[in-house]
Amino acid sequence: MATKYLKMPNDESSSSSSSSSILIQVSETLPSLESVHDFLSSSSPGCGAVSVFVGITRNNFEGKVVTNLEYEGYTPMAIRELHAICCDARAMYPGVERLVAAHLLGDCPVGGASVVVGCNSPHRKEAMRCTEYLIDELKARVPIWKKEIYEGDEGSVWKENLEWREGRRRRVMAKENHV
Amino acid sequence: MATKYLKMPNDESSSSSSSSSILIQVSETLPSLESVHDFLSSSSPGCGAVSVFVGITRNNFEGKVVTNLEYEGYTPMAIRELHAICCDARAMYPGVERLVAAHLLGDCPVGGASVVVGCNSPHRKEAMRCTEYLIDELKARVPIWKKEIYEGDEGSVWKENLEWREGRRRRVMAKENHV
Repeated sequence: MATKYLKMPNDESSSSSSSSSILIQVSETLPSLESVHDFLSSSSPGCGAVSVFVGITRNNFEGKVVTNLEYEGYTPMAIRELHAICCDARAMYPGVERLVAAHLLGDCPVGGASVVVGCNSPHRKEAMRCTEYLIDELKARVPIWKKEIYEGDEGSVWKENLEWREGRRRRVMAKENHV
Repeated sequence: MATKYLKMPNDESSSSSSSSSILIQVSETLPSLESVHDFLSSSSPGCGAVSVFVGITRNNFEGKVVTNLEYEGYTPMAIRELHAICCDARAMYPGVERLVAAHLLGDCPVGGASVVVGCNSPHRKEAMRCTEYLIDELKARVPIWKKEIYEGDEGSVWKENLEWREGRRRRVMAKENHV
């Protein structure tokens, strides 16, 4: 869990020639919003739009009081999948120039940020649609588990941090543990 | 243009009882993204989503090279309209708890941020839809002009920073100046 990754790869699996235009991070810290914004707005003088989404730990889930979350994942695969999602996003939204996808590992208290995605583009609709695509795909595809820790005697549950959709279940990752 | 406004009003024109849940700013600086995020994620333990959009000065408009923008507005009216937009947004997206709408006045070079809007909500779709609503309405309703300054002999043009839509033209604000 202590392994940290900060990766700004070339867009190897895309036909784009741009380099260092994707920021992927899976680690025990998230990049600051200022650094995300600086990354998304740098070297893109033709882009008028930056869109960012941040996922936050909520204090409840299905009526139970959540006090803390823990995230755990197989980091190399998570990084590969985030990179693939960014390449897919660029193919779907060709105006987008730069993309960020970062996920926290480890503890995340209520109110803390666990995930940040975003992008830039010349005009705003494309940036906002692409940001929505990034977070939807991240939730659906990235192999990161979360452990919800509940107040009192409710214990905790490890869950896939995934929103499997009909027909998309390609992996089996089930891990449940009541303490 | 030197006047600065930082306003966190109660939601006077809404039926919501929450206070200090709207951050409006029209001034020669924008709030930092960290402060926007801190505002949007504070005191909202039931909210799992923060969405932010930043508008950036582009280097081109209709084939002309833009070197700089200047923004000018009647600040009290701009603040009132931003506040009204936030109240409208909350009525349309009742899960949203906190909102930000800030616009720069004065100079904004290429690559600089001129506007930031955002909100939080329990789930992500509502936050992202509401953010889109905020920037669409801001562009359509807020009385702020922009002066595009072009490279070389192309001069400059004052424009409404507005996207008038069919049937919504309630004000007449036209101001054009070729230098």
